[in-house]
Amino acid sequence: MKNTYTECPILSQAECNKGMLAIDDALYAIGGKWKLRIILALRYGKKRFNELQRTVPGISARVLSNELKELELNGFVRRNVFPQSPVLVEYEATEYSRSLDEIIKALSDWGGQHKHKVKREMQKAVEMF
Amino acid sequence: MKNTYTECPILSQAECNKGMLAIDDALYAIGGKWKLRIILALRYGKKRFNELQRTVPGISARVLSNELKELELNGFVRRNVFPQSPVLVEYEATEYSRSLDEIIKALSDWGGQHKHKVKREMQKAVEMF
Repeated sequence: MKNTYTECPILSQAECNKGMLAIDDALYAIGGKWKLRIILALRYGKKRFNELQRTVPGISARVLSNELKELELNGFVRRNVFPQSPVLVEYEATEYSRSLDEIIKALSDWGGQHKHKVKREMQKAVEMF
Repeated sequence: MKNTYTECPILSQAECNKGMLAIDDALYAIGGKWKLRIILALRYGKKRFNELQRTVPGISARVLSNELKELELNGFVRRNVFPQSPVLVEYEATEYSRSLDEIIKALSDWGGQHKHKVKREMQKAVEMF
């Protein structure tokens, strides 16, 4: 079998293996179904737990609670407790979460284009039917 | 409770809800633990199944097989069958998979920075100990 390894097409050759590992690191920290959605929801404003759960459709309270703990540990989310009666707990996106803007922008741009492409293809399939 | 909804900080206000949905679309197509890793591995060159499995550490044959089917359906991966003996099956990244370059680049840049930050913080913690 001919096995041609092309040059790393996206990252420079020197940065190549490092880049592969960096993507692993990124996916480890913000990969999965929920983390980016939660961060994005909080970038629109501080929220209480229930409010946040409503903003991220489909997430269960248990999963949201776990995700918030991880996001707090990683410095993306701050949990503010206001000692009043009843106690008010609010979650907010940290300054550091803004470092994800480029990823969020790239995902959003691409998602829009991809949906367009899928729509066009479905249209074509319907016309050929 | 004071509930200040800030303006959408990353996307323009008009593009805001659309952007949220676009991110959902993107995560639906390429989210999860494996898809971007598989695409990236194939961007370095065509690979047979076993070879690809070795390049994506930790993935099981069953999961890889399912992910490849989905990636093929979504137009990111092409499965080439060469009728020889034994039959040769090779997977390759499509032209369309290049549309993900900006996302991959953003993830890789951010992952590198994030690892640096985590290292610095661990260093500080060690020094304070």
